[in-house]
Amino acid sequence: MSEWYQGDCAVPCEHSRERSRVRQLQLTKPPGSLGQLETIATCFSAWQQREIPALDTIGIRVFAADHGICDQGISAFPAEVTVQMIANFVAGGAAISVLSQDLGADFQVVNMGTRQPVPAAPRLTDISLMPGTRDFSREPAMPEAILEQALAAGREQIDGHDWQLFIGGEMGIGNTTAAAAILAALLQQPTERIVGRGTGIDTATWEHKCDVVAKSLLLHQLTGADPLQVLLCVGGLEIAALCGAFIRCAQSGVPVLVDGFIATAAAVAATRINPGVSGWLLAGHRSAEAGHQLALQSLSLEPILDLGMRLGEGSGAAVAVAVLRSALSLHRNMATFAEAEVSAAGAPAAGPPATA
Amino acid sequence: MSEWYQGDCAVPCEHSRERSRVRQLQLTKPPGSLGQLETIATCFSAWQQREIPALDTIGIRVFAADHGICDQGISAFPAEVTVQMIANFVAGGAAISVLSQDLGADFQVVNMGTRQPVPAAPRLTDISLMPGTRDFSREPAMPEAILEQALAAGREQIDGHDWQLFIGGEMGIGNTTAAAAILAALLQQPTERIVGRGTGIDTATWEHKCDVVAKSLLLHQLTGADPLQVLLCVGGLEIAALCGAFIRCAQSGVPVLVDGFIATAAAVAATRINPGVSGWLLAGHRSAEAGHQLALQSLSLEPILDLGMRLGEGSGAAVAVAVLRSALSLHRNMATFAEAEVSAAGAPAAGPPATA
Repeated sequence: MSEWYQGDCAVPCEHSRERSRVRQLQLTKPPGSLGQLETIATCFSAWQQREIPALDTIGIRVFAADHGICDQGISAFPAEVTVQMIANFVAGGAAISVLSQDLGADFQVVNMGTRQPVPAAPRLTDISLMPGTRDFSREPAMPEAILEQALAAGREQIDGHDWQLFIGGEMGIGNTTAAAAILAALLQQPTERIVGRGTGIDTATWEHKCDVVAKSLLLHQLTGADPLQVLLCVGGLEIAALCGAFIRCAQSGVPVLVDGFIATAAAVAATRINPGVSGWLLAGHRSAEAGHQLALQSLSLEPILDLGMRLGEGSGAAVAVAVLRSALSLHRNMATFAEAEVSAAGAPAAGPPATA
Repeated sequence: MSEWYQGDCAVPCEHSRERSRVRQLQLTKPPGSLGQLETIATCFSAWQQREIPALDTIGIRVFAADHGICDQGISAFPAEVTVQMIANFVAGGAAISVLSQDLGADFQVVNMGTRQPVPAAPRLTDISLMPGTRDFSREPAMPEAILEQALAAGREQIDGHDWQLFIGGEMGIGNTTAAAAILAALLQQPTERIVGRGTGIDTATWEHKCDVVAKSLLLHQLTGADPLQVLLCVGGLEIAALCGAFIRCAQSGVPVLVDGFIATAAAVAATRINPGVSGWLLAGHRSAEAGHQLALQSLSLEPILDLGMRLGEGSGAAVAVAVLRSALSLHRNMATFAEAEVSAAGAPAAGPPATA
C-alpha cells in the first residue's frame, strides 16, 4: 500500500534554471564571480519556475520533543530544559525566535511530546503524541502508529501555506544522540565518526554516548535499508515530524533550507523515504557537530555558512537566509552588460596580447 | 619625520569585550554554540566600548583606478571597462551598488585616476591623481608624491563620518596583478602561490601574469621590508587609497570589514605601515582568488563567508554584513537563562549519570 510520503515530489523547472543561467552571464560581472550566489539564484528560478525569483515569505517551524535516551546520561543539560526552552521560544527569547522576528518569518513551535506538560501559548501547537520517546537503548523509541502520526504532523505544518522557503528547527535534550544513531545507521558509518559533543559534553560522556549508540544499533539490528524502521527504533518525535515536513515541502514545491546536524539527519531519512526530496534542499550551514559534514556529503549539499555554530533550533539556516536574499537581490537588480554599456569579457585588451 | 599614517590607532576596550563575553555565557544556549557569531558580538563590544553594540551605520567607498600593467595583457577585460564600471556603480547597476542599497549604507565611488576621463555624477568623487599607474614591469607604478596623495585621499573618505563599520571596495582592470605583486613582496611568497585567475584568464595568460609579477619584483628589488616602497613600485592608486582609509579607520575607532584579494592586500600593507590597524579588522569572506587565504592567515583573520566569490568591489564584505547584524541582534535580543527561567548546563540530569 502506498503511503502519502511516497507520493511524487514536484519537479524543479530546468527551463527556468537555464534562463536564469543565461541572465547570470549577462550581468555586469565576470562570469562565475558571484560563486555560490549564482547557483542559489538559479535554484530558486527552477523552484519558482521563473527567471527572476523572490524570497519574501518564509515558514519556520520548530518541532520539540523529549528523548528517553536521556536516561542514559548522554547530555550536558537535564531533560526538563526541553519544556523550559519551548516557553522561551514562544516568549521570543531563544535564538530562533530572535532570528525569525528579524526575517519577518511565519514562526510557530510544535510540541510533539515532552515528559512534562507545556502550558498553552500563542504560536504553540501542542500535539503531544507521547511523553517523549522511550529509551532506545532498551526498546524501540516509538510504536509504528506514533511514527505515522509524527510524520503526518510534519506534513500538516506545510499544508495550506505557500511559502517560498521552509526552515525546520528542533529542540529536544538528547536529540543529537538520536540523530547520530539515525545517521550511523543510514550512512553505515562507525559511531565515532558521527557522534558529537552535542550541547557540550566532556570526553568521558562522549565515549559513553558513542557506546550507547553502537549498542542500540546492535540491539535493533538496523541495517540502514529501511529508513522508517530506523526512525521508529532510534528516532525522535521531532525528527520524524521534520522528516514528514521536508517530504511535504518537496511534494508541494517549497524549497527547504536545512539547518544543522539533527535537521540534516531528518533530511537524509526523508530522501531515503522519497528520493524526489533531494531536488528541494539547500544546506544553511556546516555545524560544528561531528558527522554533519558526512551527512551533507551524502546529500551532495554544499553549506552556505560555516561559522562553527552548533545550536540547532533552525538557527544556522535562519542566519543563512540573508545570503539567499542577497543572491536574489543581485540576480534581480544588477544591470546587464547591454543595459550598462559595459564591454564583456573576451573583448580585445587595450595592450598587446600575452606572450611568453 | 612622522607622517599621519604612523599616528596611534584607537585601542579596543578589553573591559567591554569581557562584559560582552559574560553576557554571551548567560544567553539561553549552550556556551559557544553560536560559534563565530559570539566572537563577532564581543569584537563589536570592544570597538564600541559597550556591552550591547549596534550596527546601523555603514560606510562603503569604492576606489577605482587604471593600471599601466594592463599593457602586458594580464586581464580578461580591456582597461576601458574601469571607466564603464564607474558609470555602472553610480547608476546603481553593479553588485556593490545593489548590496549597498539593500544595506542602507552610505555609498560613494572615488575615481583615483583612470586612463579616460569619467563624467561627473552624483555619488562620485573625482580625484584623478594621474591617468592610471605606470606599467610597473618597466618603472615604478607611481611617484612618491602621488602615493602620499592617494593615502591621504583614503583618509579623507573616513574623516567627518562616524560609521559603525567601513567597507572599502575597489575597481580597476589589472588590479589583481598589482595586489598579487604587493602580497608576493610583503608575504615573501613565490608568485605561483599568490597570483590568481582574476576576472577569468586562461592558463597561458596566468603563467604570463606570474612571470610579469616575478620579473617586476626583481626589477624593483623589493625585499618586502618597506610597505610604502612596495605600494609605490607595484601598487595601484585605489589600493593605496584603501590602505590610507583602513589606517584612518583604525585611528578613528571604526572597524573595517575587509573584502577580497585586493582589499586584503591593502589591509596587509596597512598593518605593515601601522601595526595598530590589525585590531580593527574583520574578514568578510574568503575569495576564490589564489593567495587570498595566505593573506588572511598573515592577518590572523578567519573569514565570515566562503562562497567562492571573486568579484571585488567590496561585494563579499557587503554580503557578510547580514551575518554581523544577526550576531548583534542575537546578542541584544536573546533572553538570559535567568530571564527565561531555563536551567543552565551542568545542572543534574534527570536520569542516572553516565557510566561505562
